[in-house]
Amino acid sequence: MAHQPGTKRGRPGYDQHSMLVVAVEAFNEFGYDATSIGTLAARLGTSKAAIYHHFSSKEELLELALDEALTALEGVLGDEQADEGTASDRLALVVRGAVHVLVNKLPYVTLLLRVRGNSDVERNALERRKNFDRAVTQLLSEARAEGSIRSDLDPSVAERLLFGMINSIVEWYKPKSPEDAARLADDVIAVAFDGLRVPR
Amino acid sequence: MAHQPGTKRGRPGYDQHSMLVVAVEAFNEFGYDATSIGTLAARLGTSKAAIYHHFSSKEELLELALDEALTALEGVLGDEQADEGTASDRLALVVRGAVHVLVNKLPYVTLLLRVRGNSDVERNALERRKNFDRAVTQLLSEARAEGSIRSDLDPSVAERLLFGMINSIVEWYKPKSPEDAARLADDVIAVAFDGLRVPR
Repeated sequence: MAHQPGTKRGRPGYDQHSMLVVAVEAFNEFGYDATSIGTLAARLGTSKAAIYHHFSSKEELLELALDEALTALEGVLGDEQADEGTASDRLALVVRGAVHVLVNKLPYVTLLLRVRGNSDVERNALERRKNFDRAVTQLLSEARAEGSIRSDLDPSVAERLLFGMINSIVEWYKPKSPEDAARLADDVIAVAFDGLRVPR
Repeated sequence: MAHQPGTKRGRPGYDQHSMLVVAVEAFNEFGYDATSIGTLAARLGTSKAAIYHHFSSKEELLELALDEALTALEGVLGDEQADEGTASDRLALVVRGAVHVLVNKLPYVTLLLRVRGNSDVERNALERRKNFDRAVTQLLSEARAEGSIRSDLDPSVAERLLFGMINSIVEWYKPKSPEDAARLADDVIAVAFDGLRVPR
C-alpha cells in the first residue's frame, strides 16, 4: 500500500494509487454502477472532496483501473514482439505473460472482464481488448502457418477457447506465492499446448 | 416458443414457459436485481397479475431458470455414469455433453454463471454447481489413475481450467445450426485432450 507510514485505513493519507485500489475493490464487490463516490468516501473514511482532489469523476477511476489491466496485457504482446523465436514459442510467452498479469493485477483484470460497453470509457476498453485478441489470433495463425499449431482449428475459435481458459482464472484464483503463479502458468501451458491426455 | 398459435409477443397468451424465457432474457440483459416484475410485465405487454398467476415471486422465476440449466448439466453426468468406457472416454462424453447444454440452454447457463450466492436460491444453485464440479474432478482423478490423463496436473486445477474454457463459450457463442454446436464440441475436445500443438 502506498499511503504514508503511520496512517491507517479509514484515515486521511491515501494517495491517488491507494484510493484507486480501494475503488477497484468496491467496483468488483458491488458493481461499478452501484458504487457512488459517497460509498467510496465512506469506505476510505475520507470526504468526497478528498477523492475529487485526486480524480475528476468516478469514471476517471474506472478509466485508470481498466488502463492498468490493459497496459499490462499489451505489455505482454510487446515482450512477444521483441522475441526472436518461432510463433509457437512467442505464443507460449504471451500465454505465460497473460497468466502472470491476471495473477498480479487480479482486481483490475476482474473489473476489465466485467465491462460490457455501457460508456465511452468501457467501449474504449473493449476495443483495446479486441485488439489484444486480434494480435493473439494473428500469432495463432502464424504458428499454424509454420506448422507448429494444429490446422483443424479456426485460429479465432482457438484464441477464444485459450483465453476463455486463462480469463476464467479470475473466478477462482486466490493469490498465494509468486511460485504459485508460475506453477499455474505452467499448468495452463501444459493444458493449452499438449492437452490433458497422456501423450501417446 | 410454447405460447398459443395466433398470439403475438406483447399480447396476452404467454404460458409459464414462455414467460420464463422472456424473464431470463431480461435478467441477463439488465441483471436480476435491476429487473422488477413491473419491468417483466412491461416487456411481456401483460399485467403483473398475469405473471403472478404463473409464479409466486421473481425469485421463483430465478429458481426455475437456474434449475433448467442445472438439471441439464446434471443429466450429462447421468449419461456418463451409464456409459461403460474408460474414465477418459466418460470425461470426453461429459465435456461434449456440457458444450451441448451450453449451446442449447445458452440464456439459462449464462444466468447460472453469473450467480454469486446472494440468496438461498442462489446458494443452492452454487452448491449444485459445486457438486457437478466435484463429480468432474473425480472423473479426472479416475482418468489419471487409469493412466490416460497426465499426472503432472492437480485434478481440481485441471477441472477449473477445463470448465473455464467451456463456460467462456457463453461470452461469445452466437447460436447457429446444430452442426455448428457439434463442431464446437469437437474443437473443445481437441484443445482439452490433445492441446493446440501439432502432435509430435
